[in-house]
Amino acid sequence: MITVGLDLGGTKIAAAAVRDGQILEQRRRETPQSGAADVIAALAEVASALLEAYPEARSVGIGCPGPLDFERGRVRFAPNIAGMEDAPLVDALRERLGLSVVLENDANAAGYAEHRYGAARDLATSVYVTLSTGIGGGVFVGDRVLRGAHGLAGEIGHMTLLPGGPVGGDGHPGSWEAIAAGRAMARDASYVFSRPVSTAELFELARAGDRRALAIIDNAARFTGIGLANVVKVVDPAGFVLGGGVTGVGDFYLERVRATLAQYSTGYPLPQVRVAELGDDAGVIGAATVAAFEHASSSPAGV
Amino acid sequence: MITVGLDLGGTKIAAAAVRDGQILEQRRRETPQSGAADVIAALAEVASALLEAYPEARSVGIGCPGPLDFERGRVRFAPNIAGMEDAPLVDALRERLGLSVVLENDANAAGYAEHRYGAARDLATSVYVTLSTGIGGGVFVGDRVLRGAHGLAGEIGHMTLLPGGPVGGDGHPGSWEAIAAGRAMARDASYVFSRPVSTAELFELARAGDRRALAIIDNAARFTGIGLANVVKVVDPAGFVLGGGVTGVGDFYLERVRATLAQYSTGYPLPQVRVAELGDDAGVIGAATVAAFEHASSSPAGV
Repeated sequence: MITVGLDLGGTKIAAAAVRDGQILEQRRRETPQSGAADVIAALAEVASALLEAYPEARSVGIGCPGPLDFERGRVRFAPNIAGMEDAPLVDALRERLGLSVVLENDANAAGYAEHRYGAARDLATSVYVTLSTGIGGGVFVGDRVLRGAHGLAGEIGHMTLLPGGPVGGDGHPGSWEAIAAGRAMARDASYVFSRPVSTAELFELARAGDRRALAIIDNAARFTGIGLANVVKVVDPAGFVLGGGVTGVGDFYLERVRATLAQYSTGYPLPQVRVAELGDDAGVIGAATVAAFEHASSSPAGV
Repeated sequence: MITVGLDLGGTKIAAAAVRDGQILEQRRRETPQSGAADVIAALAEVASALLEAYPEARSVGIGCPGPLDFERGRVRFAPNIAGMEDAPLVDALRERLGLSVVLENDANAAGYAEHRYGAARDLATSVYVTLSTGIGGGVFVGDRVLRGAHGLAGEIGHMTLLPGGPVGGDGHPGSWEAIAAGRAMARDASYVFSRPVSTAELFELARAGDRRALAIIDNAARFTGIGLANVVKVVDPAGFVLGGGVTGVGDFYLERVRATLAQYSTGYPLPQVRVAELGDDAGVIGAATVAAFEHASSSPAGV
């Protein structure tokens, strides 16, 4: 079955016609910064072009940032896209495209692609973790996305790992994200070096062997290992898929993550820790795959 | 449909014939301490008596402590029951009873009863938390038990909430259980009062207004709130059901748990926090309900 996947990001929109996790054709364009109506028009335009080329496509999936209202098919708000508050994404796109439209959280969509067709395709239960500016994720059980009661399952970066630790964007101290995400490491580096240091510069310093840069990354890796171990205790996945720019810092980072996960999971069979395989394509593949699932089964891909 | 539920505990075995979550007849006896063969014989005996009284019963469910091997239907080991290592519980009981036998973790069984028929019966997604000598739990999504890759999902008391905190039975520092379970509170009380203090005595002291006893319970309640908030970030349940003796210490405990959960879940719709309703009956009702589910659907209740 061919479906169309849309990936709505803060700066760009990606769209692809997808069959069995394979991209047949892909299109990209910039995300309009002029409000929901223009964003919806841009999404409809790229989707229409693909639907013209693939008239056999059966449905459309869209991966979106920000907390979503699955019941009403709306974005509650998207921190990085202006004017998306309560935007009626699903209804508007269904009307313009004449096909059913399925909404999914962007991290869930990317993780679902990895779960079904990427690094976790052989694992029955997997958890996707995006280690980037922030830390997010998705939980996948069998062929389903765990959505939770309000579509907020898998927001694992907000777990508290150190009460009394650094205060995060969510206003409480010591979350995984506030200790170990890219922006948290840059904060620590700027403090340590008494000048503004970006995550990229920090990683360069670490690769060049700077002792203090390595200490910051080592601390972040250690807490990411503790975070993964906490997810093990709740979900007991067969494996993790790690995505996002932080995974590229070097092998020493992943080694430290794995060692800490093992240390904090005594008595548990150690889950796989793998790096994401699908890169930027994960978003559109996942959105298209969620749409294919719902079309085929007439029950939602998410539970 | 009538099914039989068995609840294997360290000191007693409970058995009941159950229909739609209602106990029709219940039996109890002591758990033999003389090895797996005697435990299996005792389980078969109480189950047979009920099956004789209810010949229309279709299958048998059994809730067991300890890590289980679901694929092979065995107990890996049960810390509180002698000689249960790798005991072939399911095969042995099926042979003696002539019915299909379904194995379930004891906390999952009790929680599943609360999810389907008890305090969480109106919630689509719920998490059961047993706050007792230790801290355990179960995660329920729709009508399914989340088991995970190795049957270890829901062992939430082993989450790390304070790296560097007290070392727990699993050998790593700062787990929820090692900070906030009944045995952890007794450890802290014994230190604070410089003499052996049981959990029961600590609770009495707190109810009488002892400042130091209250501080210990307050600390435990606070970390239990943080633990629940961490589960929110992974699973996003509609609510929690709290069971176990610790919940009985007093309203101030539950108030502190709820307040801390709210504090550490900014931005999330606050889940329900309810106290378990089914008491000691939860184990047999849950085991029987898992068996009924699997018999009716020919697919496992657990995912």
